[in-house]
Amino acid sequence: MHLTHLDCPGCGATYDAGRLRNLCRCGSPLLARYDLTAVGRAVTPAALAARPATLWRYRELLPVADDRYVTTLGEGWTPLVPVPRYGAHIGLPRLLVKDEGLIPTGSFKARGAAVGVSRAAELGARHIAMPTNGNAGAAWATYAARAGLRATIAMPAGAPVVTREECRIAGADLHVVDGLIGDAARALAPVLADPAVFDVSTLKEPYRVEGKKTMGYEIVEQLGWRVPDAILYPTGGGVGLIGIAKALAELRELGWLGDRQPRLVAVQSTGCAPIVRAFQAGARRADPWPDAHTIAFGITVPAPLGDELILDALRATGGTAIAVDDAEILADLRAFGTREGLLLCPEGAACLSAARRLRADGWLDDGAQVVVLNTGSGLKYVDALQ
Amino acid sequence: MHLTHLDCPGCGATYDAGRLRNLCRCGSPLLARYDLTAVGRAVTPAALAARPATLWRYRELLPVADDRYVTTLGEGWTPLVPVPRYGAHIGLPRLLVKDEGLIPTGSFKARGAAVGVSRAAELGARHIAMPTNGNAGAAWATYAARAGLRATIAMPAGAPVVTREECRIAGADLHVVDGLIGDAARALAPVLADPAVFDVSTLKEPYRVEGKKTMGYEIVEQLGWRVPDAILYPTGGGVGLIGIAKALAELRELGWLGDRQPRLVAVQSTGCAPIVRAFQAGARRADPWPDAHTIAFGITVPAPLGDELILDALRATGGTAIAVDDAEILADLRAFGTREGLLLCPEGAACLSAARRLRADGWLDDGAQVVVLNTGSGLKYVDALQ
Repeated sequence: MHLTHLDCPGCGATYDAGRLRNLCRCGSPLLARYDLTAVGRAVTPAALAARPATLWRYRELLPVADDRYVTTLGEGWTPLVPVPRYGAHIGLPRLLVKDEGLIPTGSFKARGAAVGVSRAAELGARHIAMPTNGNAGAAWATYAARAGLRATIAMPAGAPVVTREECRIAGADLHVVDGLIGDAARALAPVLADPAVFDVSTLKEPYRVEGKKTMGYEIVEQLGWRVPDAILYPTGGGVGLIGIAKALAELRELGWLGDRQPRLVAVQSTGCAPIVRAFQAGARRADPWPDAHTIAFGITVPAPLGDELILDALRATGGTAIAVDDAEILADLRAFGTREGLLLCPEGAACLSAARRLRADGWLDDGAQVVVLNTGSGLKYVDALQ
Repeated sequence: MHLTHLDCPGCGATYDAGRLRNLCRCGSPLLARYDLTAVGRAVTPAALAARPATLWRYRELLPVADDRYVTTLGEGWTPLVPVPRYGAHIGLPRLLVKDEGLIPTGSFKARGAAVGVSRAAELGARHIAMPTNGNAGAAWATYAARAGLRATIAMPAGAPVVTREECRIAGADLHVVDGLIGDAARALAPVLADPAVFDVSTLKEPYRVEGKKTMGYEIVEQLGWRVPDAILYPTGGGVGLIGIAKALAELRELGWLGDRQPRLVAVQSTGCAPIVRAFQAGARRADPWPDAHTIAFGITVPAPLGDELILDALRATGGTAIAVDDAEILADLRAFGTREGLLLCPEGAACLSAARRLRADGWLDDGAQVVVLNTGSGLKYVDALQ
């Protein structure tokens, strides 16, 4: 393993990576750091080509020392699908969809859960707990069961019903809470008061982002070790966007990529757009969004803990943040379906709406190679569509 | 392309593969045949290792001449997951699950649809139609949209609701019919009376099985070009089982496999078990099953057109047929979930019940390497679980 330590992007403090950790003492999320010189000696892009079609192909860049703790259901290496017919419809004929529907639990949350649970198990956790908008809880419950850990999950009553059933089937203790994800977090406080329960809330432990970053590696490898012009990401907690930015930085440091950056775009709903508002105001932090509501339930996160990291990634790459409304999301989901067949999730469809708008106002030109993250399977959202 | 012709496994008649065809004039399904000598010169198992992680890695063994007609959403190369904890629970520690939940549309029907639509488009079809228990219709509607073809789909009202929504999103003409799949077929008769509409009902065209057979190639390649001891397949129309048997025969003829056969097992529900009854009676054909009903809706096929091909495959491999009941299916689905995390589909869980029973009565020994097909994502069956 080439993991060396954890560091704080806020205050610069460093921590031993050999024990279970949550936030920095300054309150910031911690990030995992590797000996990239050693990684570069251990593996090359060419050697990766023959590896298994899962995120574990990037083994040297992941934080698990002992293979026995690798908890996998075959997650990762999802298709990067050209969608020329819909793309032409919105003026972006080179549009690509990274389809995270093709992953265990039907959501990209499986990436964070696979790596997070693996590392938590390796460091001795026996019981994890988290609040969730549904998909993350389903994924962590699933991987916890696979690893033999207990899981306690709290989710809003409005979360997709299927995610409750996934938690129950996986044997998790499930709390269904009136309100939003913050209310679910408050409901878990008594459980988390037990020091034997490890808090795996979004960005409160450093390894979920390590699983999510593999989306960045995969996009680059699937494009032949090149970056696209822009990556559009539906942003709730923002872990995937932070992870993709981290992955690109690591690949550049490894010398596996040139200096060209893809512009990173945070896509939110007009019903919950704290990052968009902060980005437009030039603020460093995002204020909580009141009365959050959108059909794209996975991005209903009124107060993301990683707000600074998200805003930094957008600004560092010349990216932007954009909010779209529910009517647009549903219209683009349908326009995509009739042209490309696939039923996207509303969060993925929100990125199509964003791509359409960014093309229409000239922020993207017609030759741009744009990657849209479809962060989960539309099969989980049938209630919302009906 | 190495496709040479179609032949009839019933009467031996042969047909030109260069135009759209349905059944043989004797009423039997037709099968696609290849110049396997030429395939063996064109590709080797070692060369396959570097191919894309989709079913199109077996390009030389698929019936599409021109790449422009390849209609893909990244389907295939699904994980073959060791499930040692549940396996030990039922006395089969080497049990493996081939997880067909990780495929576009969340069901293995995508394989048949991807190849079937590609070939239909290449041969000039502009409009396809079929009856379905839900998942096949969703898959064919999805790939038809992707290829720019019209689709007319009829399904029973009892089919999973999500499959209706998939058809609608893909822009298909959808008919929801009271009754079972046979009633859906009758409802389509007026549509199919139009010679411009191509009938893609189960086994009524020869290329769906070509897509499904890739499960057989993948199992063998994922095991290092070896066969397991047994493959358990939830059997409705039986196309996958017929396809796996065909794949194994092709690999043997190519010299890529030894003579060892995996035993093929058809798993049905006690609520719809025409193949089990025919197998036990030593019959060549299966009689229609009256009043069919099971929670594993995808295998509610009272009168499978491929009955002879299915029974031949079971007998030729020293396999068997077994029926399990809904209570067992749900119990094994839950027992699996708490031990391995993943929410299987009821059809996949039926194979677990069958594996448990076959182990308990000694048909499988404790060292057997057994592959169970989880033919789709459990996410599509939440209504059934609640």
